[in-house]
Amino acid sequence: MNIAIEQAVSLLNEHDNILIISHKSPDGDTLGSAFALYYALTSLGKTARFLCSDPVPDRFCYFTDEYVESSFAPDFVVAVDIAATQLLGARTMPYAANIDLCIDHHPSNDGFAKHTYLVPAAAATCEIMFDVVTHLGAKITQKMADCLYTGISTDTGCFKFSNTTVNTHIVASKLFEFGADHEFINRLMFETKSKSRLKIELAALSSIEYFFDDRVAIISISQKMIEELNADESELDGISAIPRSIEGVEVGITIREKKEGGYKMSVRTTSAVDASKLCATFGGGGHKRAGGCFIDEGYQTAKRLIVEAIKPLLQSN
Amino acid sequence: MNIAIEQAVSLLNEHDNILIISHKSPDGDTLGSAFALYYALTSLGKTARFLCSDPVPDRFCYFTDEYVESSFAPDFVVAVDIAATQLLGARTMPYAANIDLCIDHHPSNDGFAKHTYLVPAAAATCEIMFDVVTHLGAKITQKMADCLYTGISTDTGCFKFSNTTVNTHIVASKLFEFGADHEFINRLMFETKSKSRLKIELAALSSIEYFFDDRVAIISISQKMIEELNADESELDGISAIPRSIEGVEVGITIREKKEGGYKMSVRTTSAVDASKLCATFGGGGHKRAGGCFIDEGYQTAKRLIVEAIKPLLQSN
Repeated sequence: MNIAIEQAVSLLNEHDNILIISHKSPDGDTLGSAFALYYALTSLGKTARFLCSDPVPDRFCYFTDEYVESSFAPDFVVAVDIAATQLLGARTMPYAANIDLCIDHHPSNDGFAKHTYLVPAAAATCEIMFDVVTHLGAKITQKMADCLYTGISTDTGCFKFSNTTVNTHIVASKLFEFGADHEFINRLMFETKSKSRLKIELAALSSIEYFFDDRVAIISISQKMIEELNADESELDGISAIPRSIEGVEVGITIREKKEGGYKMSVRTTSAVDASKLCATFGGGGHKRAGGCFIDEGYQTAKRLIVEAIKPLLQSN
Repeated sequence: MNIAIEQAVSLLNEHDNILIISHKSPDGDTLGSAFALYYALTSLGKTARFLCSDPVPDRFCYFTDEYVESSFAPDFVVAVDIAATQLLGARTMPYAANIDLCIDHHPSNDGFAKHTYLVPAAAATCEIMFDVVTHLGAKITQKMADCLYTGISTDTGCFKFSNTTVNTHIVASKLFEFGADHEFINRLMFETKSKSRLKIELAALSSIEYFFDDRVAIISISQKMIEELNADESELDGISAIPRSIEGVEVGITIREKKEGGYKMSVRTTSAVDASKLCATFGGGGHKRAGGCFIDEGYQTAKRLIVEAIKPLLQSN
């Protein structure tokens, strides 16, 4: 049942022993909104616990460092930034049928909770949570401001994406007043690259090739490069955005050699070409603008096959 | 003489035939503030002209496409985002002694103009210009909102840098209401790279050197590289952010060889080191976290001099 903020706040006020759940593979928004709520509830004298199926990534430690992990029997369960129960994961799935309240901004939220406070126009659940903790009457501490700013900043690509609204900027300005350390947070989330990441970028940029009048750009990463650079998966993932970010490029492909042989293709496209359609040719899939597939061939053949598969998609424009 | 906004607006109101000057190697902030003022003045029935010593980079064409270039005898000359006359360049230098009003946010502004409206707390001159055009009573069109948003976004790294304030976000939210196309602008400013820009990045990353236990990183761009890559000034500017973006680096320096000889140093720092203080050693200036200076020596000497000048600043932490 969709409810208004007053009802959501009443439900929280009426209960104690509140369990707050973030989605699996937690990001800045699900963690920021969970911890802002956690600190708000505990500051109001309530007992709260936080639970997530996956570990909290280290880089969020500046705001996730103060929660109590001991188990307890919750009287009330809140899910934050969770659109459907598939996003719960193993540790939180036992609560799937008993989520009392979901606070979320995903238009695709399927209403799995008993009560849902959904604001689809919000750029981030943290933008909504700012209103919730304010309505709860909690004093917004610097740490809570850091939580909320982190979710808003990460979900909007630091105010770059189309989801950013007038209200996003207004909430950000208020979080500045509550002491959010935006410089530290943004530097950590967006501006800091490890030396190994820089080396991977250098290697990737050195490998770039263009096809079809520069409408297609391909970068290639071999296992030898990965081993020499000692790069991990998450460092390699960010590379996929590079080829399509080049002016005029409609299809950007990152070819990455797998340890077990064969090549993983990460495809990024502009609006003109359907990435999932291209990837489906090789048994892969994805979205319209981003997809992936695997080609179990040698490097030259794998590259030739994907270039040939792009050709008709380009011509159809 | 430093004046208040009311006086600055009075001066503009009292005059017609107003020449607006941007600094050489124009960036989003000097152009955005110049064109917002240009459109405001012309909408109020005044005659205005825009002048810059260097060509306006193509990527700003969405807001610089409507100005009249014919020469005229100005009754009043306004410099925007210009801290000192050295930033004028050949075409605008003839006006150096006759700048009636300077609207600027650089704390280092040396007061070269007859009247200066300086707001050092502003993240961008465009943040100040929003107040100026509002006080002028001009209707803020979508194009003016695009001008002002561009300057704010580019000068703050899209709200990422430490110069971003409560007011920066408030002005951004108002510019959204006036129709600023933030998605288009941010994609163009931050997410699209030209092929030549990529080549410059590649060259810059290849040149990286570390000093003082990796607390200082330096990249170097020679004239030979610039010529081979056919890179323009604006393409080179973005490079300056790279060295400081590396994990653990407190001082990032970009050394760029000038055509006429000598080396331009772009300095970016974290909170620990004062960039303007470092640059002042060599007669330069800037802000706490970003500054520039020129060293008229050979490459090795220029590099050695700046590295030596950093040493005591690091040790004092």
